[in-house]
Amino acid sequence: MNDAVSITRDLVRCPSVTPADAGALGVLEGLLKAAGFDVHRVTFSEPGTADVDNLYARIGSSAPHITFGGHTDVVPPGDESAWTIGAFSGEVKDGYLYGRGAVDMKGGIACSVAAVLQYLQDHGGKPQEDGNGSISFLITGDEEDVSINGTVKLLKWCAERGEKFDHCVLGEPSNVEVLGDMIKIGRRGSQSGTLVVDGVQGHVAYPHRASNPVPDISRLIVALSDEPLDHGSAQFQASNLEFTTVDVGNTAGNVIPGQARAKFNIRFNDNHTQESLRQLVDERLAKACGNRIRAHIDWQPSNSNVFVTKPGPFTDLAVAAIEEITGRKPELSTSGGTSDARFISSYCPVIEFGLVGQTMHQIDERTPVADLQKLTRIYRGVLDRYFA
Amino acid sequence: MNDAVSITRDLVRCPSVTPADAGALGVLEGLLKAAGFDVHRVTFSEPGTADVDNLYARIGSSAPHITFGGHTDVVPPGDESAWTIGAFSGEVKDGYLYGRGAVDMKGGIACSVAAVLQYLQDHGGKPQEDGNGSISFLITGDEEDVSINGTVKLLKWCAERGEKFDHCVLGEPSNVEVLGDMIKIGRRGSQSGTLVVDGVQGHVAYPHRASNPVPDISRLIVALSDEPLDHGSAQFQASNLEFTTVDVGNTAGNVIPGQARAKFNIRFNDNHTQESLRQLVDERLAKACGNRIRAHIDWQPSNSNVFVTKPGPFTDLAVAAIEEITGRKPELSTSGGTSDARFISSYCPVIEFGLVGQTMHQIDERTPVADLQKLTRIYRGVLDRYFA
Repeated sequence: MNDAVSITRDLVRCPSVTPADAGALGVLEGLLKAAGFDVHRVTFSEPGTADVDNLYARIGSSAPHITFGGHTDVVPPGDESAWTIGAFSGEVKDGYLYGRGAVDMKGGIACSVAAVLQYLQDHGGKPQEDGNGSISFLITGDEEDVSINGTVKLLKWCAERGEKFDHCVLGEPSNVEVLGDMIKIGRRGSQSGTLVVDGVQGHVAYPHRASNPVPDISRLIVALSDEPLDHGSAQFQASNLEFTTVDVGNTAGNVIPGQARAKFNIRFNDNHTQESLRQLVDERLAKACGNRIRAHIDWQPSNSNVFVTKPGPFTDLAVAAIEEITGRKPELSTSGGTSDARFISSYCPVIEFGLVGQTMHQIDERTPVADLQKLTRIYRGVLDRYFA
Repeated sequence: MNDAVSITRDLVRCPSVTPADAGALGVLEGLLKAAGFDVHRVTFSEPGTADVDNLYARIGSSAPHITFGGHTDVVPPGDESAWTIGAFSGEVKDGYLYGRGAVDMKGGIACSVAAVLQYLQDHGGKPQEDGNGSISFLITGDEEDVSINGTVKLLKWCAERGEKFDHCVLGEPSNVEVLGDMIKIGRRGSQSGTLVVDGVQGHVAYPHRASNPVPDISRLIVALSDEPLDHGSAQFQASNLEFTTVDVGNTAGNVIPGQARAKFNIRFNDNHTQESLRQLVDERLAKACGNRIRAHIDWQPSNSNVFVTKPGPFTDLAVAAIEEITGRKPELSTSGGTSDARFISSYCPVIEFGLVGQTMHQIDERTPVADLQKLTRIYRGVLDRYFA
C-alpha cells in the first residue's frame, strides 16, 4: 500500500540526521521509478562540507509543470530515551505517528508522493490525458543545517538541464495549530551588517585631543533605529531594523577609545531588494554622519532575499483544496523563519503547505494519522484543480 | 653638607620602588632629628596590600603651621641597562643629577629639607623668634601605586593626635618646561560610573515581543554626552562627561539582547561636589528615560574630589618667592593628573610646586643640579615670607 502513513513510516525509519541520507531518498526513488518517473540521484560537494545526496524525479515533459519540494534530512533526535516511542520507529500510538521528521517534513513528502501516485493511477499514469503536463519532485538532503549542497545546487542543476518549473508546493509544516490554518506564500528577507565608527583615541582628561566614537555610534544607532524603513506592503508587515549588539571592549576607564562597532539585522519586505535596501541604509547613514562622523557599514553576505507568491489563481486553487478537506480558509502568511522556498522562489512561484508544526524539532515529534490522510487528499485536490 | 644635591643623592641611592622604603625615610629621619624635629615613623596596614612606612616630623608647637608634603616611593626603573647612569646611583653628569625619583620627587623633598634646615640654622633653630610657628614634614611611601597606606591614613593619624595644618607645600614636579612656569593650585575631580539599561530579550524577527536596550542606551549616551555639565569656573575649565565604552557582548545575530552597559568618566570642577554631581547626572538620566526606559547608574567609589586653593596671600607669597629666584611669574593651574594634594586639601590649603616634570617616570629621569639649588632658594623664600 503506497499510502502516506506507510511511506512516512518507511522514511522515518531511515535515521537521516542531516547530512546523512540513511536510505531515505532510496525509499522515494523506488516508489517513483515504479510509477514511471525519470529519477535522478545527484550528489553535490563543497570543500569543508559533507557530500549530500539529492533527488530529482519528473514524469511528463511539457508544461504545465508542478513540482513538489522537500527535504529528507532531519534534526538530531536529542535524548532518545526521552521519546515515548523510538525516534526512528515511525510507530503509531493513540492515533499519532511518532518520529523525528514526522512533521518536518517526511510526513509532508509522503503525503505528496501518495497523492501523486493515486492521481497518476486514476489518470492512466499521465498528468493530463492529452499527454501534456509534468509533475516532479525536488528533494534535498541538506536543508536543516548549512543548505549548501542542497536545493540551491539542485535548482541550478535542473536549470542547466533545461528544466522549467511553473509552480511549486513545498511541504514544510506551515500550519500553526490545526491543519488548514496557514499557507505560507512568502517570507521577509534578512540582511545583517556591522556599523563601524572610527574616532580618535585619547585620554579622558583631554577630550579635545580625541574624538569619542561612543556618542557618535549612539547617534547613528538612534538615527537608523528610529526612521521606519517602510510601512508594510499588501502581503507583508513593515520592514524592521534591529541593532543586536554594540561593543567597544575598552577596559581602560581613563581612555577614550578609537573605534566602536554595532551589529544589526534587518527583516525586510517586498518594498526592497537586498541591493536597494543596502543603498537606502547607506544613504541614511551618510546623512546622519554629516561631514563629521567617520562611519561605514560592513554588509554581511546573505542568501535570504524577500520573496512572495502574490495571491492569484495558484493560491486560489490551493485554498480551495484546503477548504474542501478541512473546512478552513487558510491565512496567506509571510511570517516565520526561513526555508528552501527562498531559493525556489527565484525559479517559480512557490507556496508552503504541509502538516502542523507544533512538535517539530522537539522530543516526541508526531503527527495525527488523520492529518496525513487529510493532507494527502488536499494535495490530490491541488493536482485535480491544477491539471483540470 | 646638608645641601639639596647631597640629600637627593642619598635618597636616590635607596631603591624605594613602591611600596618598598629601602632606607629612604631613615635618611630624612636622621637629618630632621638632628635639627630638633619630633619625628614619628608610622606603619599602616590593610589586608591585601603591603605594609607601608610613613614619616611625620614637626618642629614648634603652635600656629602658623606650614607642612611640606611628599613621597619617597618611586616607580620602577624599567630597563636599567638603558640608563646613562645607574637608576639608583644619584650621580651627577654634565650638570644633571640622574636617578629614579630625581624629579618625582626625592629632589623636591631634598630641596624642602635643605631649605628648612638652613632657615632654622639662620633663626636659632626656631620657626619664629617669638617661639610661635611650626614647620613639619608629611612624607609617605605609598603614593605611586594604590595610595592606601599613605597620605590618607597619615593625615587621619595626625588629626587624631590634634595636629592642625595651616598651609601645605607639596613638592611634586609641577613645572612643565622650566622651573617657575607653573604652580598647581587644584585639580578637577574624577568620578566614574556604569550606565545599565534593562530591556527584554527576544528574537529579531519579533521585535514587538522584545524591548531592545541598544537604541535606548544609545539615546541615553547622546543625552548625557550632549548637555554641558557647566561652563567652567574662575579656576577651572568646564566639567566634562566622557563615555569610554559601551558593551552588550551579544554574539547571536538573530537575538535582541536583554541588557546593555556603558561606562563613563567625569572630570568635574568646583561647581560640583561628588554628591551634587551624581545627583545632577541621575536627574538628567531620569529625564532622558521618561516613563519608558529602565536604566540606572552604578556609581564607582572615588577618592578624587575636586579641590582648589583659591589665589590669595598664600599663593601670592609662593609666586613672589618663585619670581625672585627664577624671574618667572608662574601660572596658577588646575590641570593635569592626580596627586596626594587631593587628600591634603581636606585639611588645609595646598599648593604644588617642585621640579620640572619632563623626565619623570622615564628612563634617565634627571634634574639640572642648578634647579635643585634654585628650588631650595625658592622654598627658603617661602619660609622667609611665611614667618615674616
